[in-house]
Amino acid sequence: MITSPDNLKLKEVRQLGRRARREKLGLFTAEGEDIVLAGLRAGWVARSVFVPGSEPSSMPDVLRPIPVDDALLAEHSHLGSSTRALAVYKQQWREPTGPLSVALWGVRDPGNIGTVIRSADAFGASSVVLGPHSADPFSPKAVRGSMGAIFSVPVAKATDLGQLIGTTIAMVAAEPGDGGIAGTVPIHEVIPALVQAGTPITIVVGSEREGLPESVAKACDVRATIPMARDSVNAAMAATIALYEIARAELVNGSAPASTSSNSDLSGSST
Amino acid sequence: MITSPDNLKLKEVRQLGRRARREKLGLFTAEGEDIVLAGLRAGWVARSVFVPGSEPSSMPDVLRPIPVDDALLAEHSHLGSSTRALAVYKQQWREPTGPLSVALWGVRDPGNIGTVIRSADAFGASSVVLGPHSADPFSPKAVRGSMGAIFSVPVAKATDLGQLIGTTIAMVAAEPGDGGIAGTVPIHEVIPALVQAGTPITIVVGSEREGLPESVAKACDVRATIPMARDSVNAAMAATIALYEIARAELVNGSAPASTSSNSDLSGSST
Repeated sequence: MITSPDNLKLKEVRQLGRRARREKLGLFTAEGEDIVLAGLRAGWVARSVFVPGSEPSSMPDVLRPIPVDDALLAEHSHLGSSTRALAVYKQQWREPTGPLSVALWGVRDPGNIGTVIRSADAFGASSVVLGPHSADPFSPKAVRGSMGAIFSVPVAKATDLGQLIGTTIAMVAAEPGDGGIAGTVPIHEVIPALVQAGTPITIVVGSEREGLPESVAKACDVRATIPMARDSVNAAMAATIALYEIARAELVNGSAPASTSSNSDLSGSST
Repeated sequence: MITSPDNLKLKEVRQLGRRARREKLGLFTAEGEDIVLAGLRAGWVARSVFVPGSEPSSMPDVLRPIPVDDALLAEHSHLGSSTRALAVYKQQWREPTGPLSVALWGVRDPGNIGTVIRSADAFGASSVVLGPHSADPFSPKAVRGSMGAIFSVPVAKATDLGQLIGTTIAMVAAEPGDGGIAGTVPIHEVIPALVQAGTPITIVVGSEREGLPESVAKACDVRATIPMARDSVNAAMAATIALYEIARAELVNGSAPASTSSNSDLSGSST
């Protein structure tokens, strides 16, 4: 049982609360029994799995759980709660892949990043791409928000829209008469035709407050709006609605869902 | 400038961090300049508005902002952050109203409650109904998550499905072959017909983990599923998708949206 904060593995965990250290070390933490079990099911090999030392752990032996003094473990939670499992993993970054991808351009809230990854998993997307000024998908809050989907959905980085796959659909606000972005089209009008044509799609969503910068929206192939009485859904909800519309179009078209392929062998390659 | 924690108004703010006290006093707090300004725009009269005393406030004079010692004000934030505006309001509870309502049955995460209220506002819903075992929509996190929509969307309580308006649609997971709930229908098949018929609708969503209890789902008029590769969207996402599908059906049907009526004069009645 680990009882000292000087333990080197625990020192590593402390460092991983900071994005700069996560990036430098190429590691991240996941907290919670359900999340750690999701990692195991997805074939991720944890570097370390810590559990409270006061009672028998429910973590399977294959994870080789390391008992830690309860209070000491609680101090090492990055989520501010007592945790029954805390694991360290190697970050895995992939290239943007299709046929269905979500790109986040300036989404700064880690909880929203996690929710988008969760939705991407739910709707069988092939990758989630983190553009400039977006939060870290491997932050403790994003991992928690993903409910373990971080282990199933490939995540990638991009600095330029040119790196994205297929037809890029910018999700933008519809504010009639404000002289904003011209040439928008409701999402339910643009998606079905693209799905029917079998076109790979990347949904591009912007920041929680300002949305996509106009220059980014204009550089995308399509600028799509969600029909609302008041423009007020957040980035995660906009991405979820777009993913739903795609799944819906696949069903209505009777096409084989383009989106259920090829994201099951994530554990192989990395970095 | 208030500099003492013994100030009676600040004592009240402290109490309002607890649900039992909020319910007893019939009050709640909102934090953040944007949220407090949303309250003002929606016609809500704050009992008190507190601002940091160290610099001129950007809050309009009509709110009669009360300067508080900066550190003391920060201590009174229920969101764990320094706040530039903290206001106290009287809770306003309404009856469930249609034609479009969302009912939360056992949604325990205040952030999810707030997100649902925000989506309800975005899609012009008439009310959000809090069923048994749901979190408090007037909790600081729910108010924050609503991004001020708490001031626009009427909220109501219900203990029984019989209190809900129109056709009740239970959002349930589609898990083929698990012997679960029989007689489900994809949401995009059931909603358009109801919208075309002009039927009032209440969307019913359950808890984050377990979903709706089977007894509740069976007692609803319809059990609807969302087409997904993996059942994994949370309560807020399920509600948002259902609201989107309704807005979509209204557009596609070309009908006047049933949902944009009558939620603009919220400030009149109360309790």
